[in-house]
Amino acid sequence: MPAAHIVSTGTALPGDAIDNEIMAGKLGISAEWIEMFIGTRKRHFAIDLETGKPTHTLADLGAQAGAQALARAGIEPEELDFVILATATPDTLMPATVNLIASRLCVNHVSTYQLQSGCAGAVQALDLARRLLDDQHRLGLVIGGDVSVKHFVADREMQGVSTAELVNYVLFGDGAGAIVVTADAVPGSLLLRQVLNRFTGLGRAPGQVVRWFGAGDLARTESEPDPPFEEDYKAIEERVPPLAKEALDEVLSSTGWDRESASYLLPPQLSGRMTSRIAADLALGHAAEISCVAETGNTGNATPFFQLDLLYDRIRPGERAVAIAIESSKWIKGAFTVEGM
Amino acid sequence: MPAAHIVSTGTALPGDAIDNEIMAGKLGISAEWIEMFIGTRKRHFAIDLETGKPTHTLADLGAQAGAQALARAGIEPEELDFVILATATPDTLMPATVNLIASRLCVNHVSTYQLQSGCAGAVQALDLARRLLDDQHRLGLVIGGDVSVKHFVADREMQGVSTAELVNYVLFGDGAGAIVVTADAVPGSLLLRQVLNRFTGLGRAPGQVVRWFGAGDLARTESEPDPPFEEDYKAIEERVPPLAKEALDEVLSSTGWDRESASYLLPPQLSGRMTSRIAADLALGHAAEISCVAETGNTGNATPFFQLDLLYDRIRPGERAVAIAIESSKWIKGAFTVEGM
Repeated sequence: MPAAHIVSTGTALPGDAIDNEIMAGKLGISAEWIEMFIGTRKRHFAIDLETGKPTHTLADLGAQAGAQALARAGIEPEELDFVILATATPDTLMPATVNLIASRLCVNHVSTYQLQSGCAGAVQALDLARRLLDDQHRLGLVIGGDVSVKHFVADREMQGVSTAELVNYVLFGDGAGAIVVTADAVPGSLLLRQVLNRFTGLGRAPGQVVRWFGAGDLARTESEPDPPFEEDYKAIEERVPPLAKEALDEVLSSTGWDRESASYLLPPQLSGRMTSRIAADLALGHAAEISCVAETGNTGNATPFFQLDLLYDRIRPGERAVAIAIESSKWIKGAFTVEGM
Repeated sequence: MPAAHIVSTGTALPGDAIDNEIMAGKLGISAEWIEMFIGTRKRHFAIDLETGKPTHTLADLGAQAGAQALARAGIEPEELDFVILATATPDTLMPATVNLIASRLCVNHVSTYQLQSGCAGAVQALDLARRLLDDQHRLGLVIGGDVSVKHFVADREMQGVSTAELVNYVLFGDGAGAIVVTADAVPGSLLLRQVLNRFTGLGRAPGQVVRWFGAGDLARTESEPDPPFEEDYKAIEERVPPLAKEALDEVLSSTGWDRESASYLLPPQLSGRMTSRIAADLALGHAAEISCVAETGNTGNATPFFQLDLLYDRIRPGERAVAIAIESSKWIKGAFTVEGM
């Protein structure tokens, strides 16, 4: 397959930043507790926190991030050959949100794909993008985004809600990120070297479950519906660091790089606190950490695109970066390597 | 990219077939009406029709179809290099159902991907499969399936429900299909020649919407939730036949085949009635029609796999087949060509 080059980035966050003071007031916990145990300072939500009503859809955010990436690359929408979206939280089951975004961007007659995934989705989207590049597909838009807040219950009585459940409210944020990918080598671009996407959850219970409800589920009034979010924080804390190490070793090895040669590390963005721990744990020589989670919350499939956005402005020709994304839902090791051109 | 060969097929349908007599009794309409206007005779549901309780998950059906495809190909799960699932109705948003299926089949350390799509998903999955085949990926399992019945309300009062809504109950069925794909040329296999996946919905209203509900949606009691299914049958009846013609012409042209050379046509499977009309409309020489919808209902992403399952037993070396899938959600033209080896 031809080499894939990232020639621009774009990002979108809904509304104003929501700090820990606001969240603390809403949830009946202390801002210091959030800061200390989660380490995430701000996040954005695609709803009005007072009413719970949606203010942004994933299509809104994806189109905004995509338009920014196109503008920065100086690309007209009609030049695109494909559009990919990675998300865990599509606006609807059908149409796939990627097609709403394509329409919003005035793109037509292209190949579109939407990958259903958690944090690993961005990695899978990059993998699909580089494999799509051929004589017919020279230029593509790759988007990752999530609007997890569809599960947020605004007027919920928080008294008595377990800590594990409260954590979800302060851990996640909504957003979308995008990149433009091309087969042509462009000075100043990022060359995508290798992509690792490896399921490793055989026989292991999911570390994270996010549900959707159908009309039939809602109508079964005799039993409580299953919780919208379930997380096994203990399993996540135990399993993610070693999986991150494995992913790092594997992707460095397949790229043919040694640990000392990487200038930048884009670590998994679980929470501000866990990210720092994992980055320290990976001990990747003198690599500078590129993280966003403390300022955006965990934006799921958008996260690696936010990191790429930060990296894009810093990396210089010849410099190397390695990114790791571990999906705890069913234990997927994701990673990729890029090099400044 | 190397040539992709389909070396086996597998299918799974939940429970007993539900005929039009049963549906007519349930919905308060006549079996003759269903037969005449929909033309679908039977379907299977992943719930108990009396209680509305789920009997099968998509993971159950996908694993069953996948296991059958593996067994028929004489492949052990550990030989697989990737697993792909196409669906509009994953069991949960996370984990992606493909990973539950991988675990169920005792597959580990492979690349997994889940495509969110309607009828065009099977085509997109074939496209991804052929693009994944490389030195590392020699053998893959590709699955398509849907469990639309999560939206079925068992004890609903059907009096006063509009015809447009009733149609959804008799149009759809649940199921999954699978194929094993390899880069190696195997006698008796199907050579995948070309795949067309083209979004063509710029500025057009969706012909079909399928929603999911989050906990936040459910909690907003002040307003009725949006309907789980919405379909614009008029737009579908008008738009799908010409899109099917375009898809046929495009895929024949990219394959380098003329209309007379195809022995089999796998037409879009919207309903028994519309499928016959489209197949007649396409007027593809003497090509034999391979359809399943009258016996299975519209099983969404499973449908092209059911058609491939029927084709696999009939096609002989050198014979050609062309398949068309039109997704009315946001107007996607899908098609592929295969040749008997």
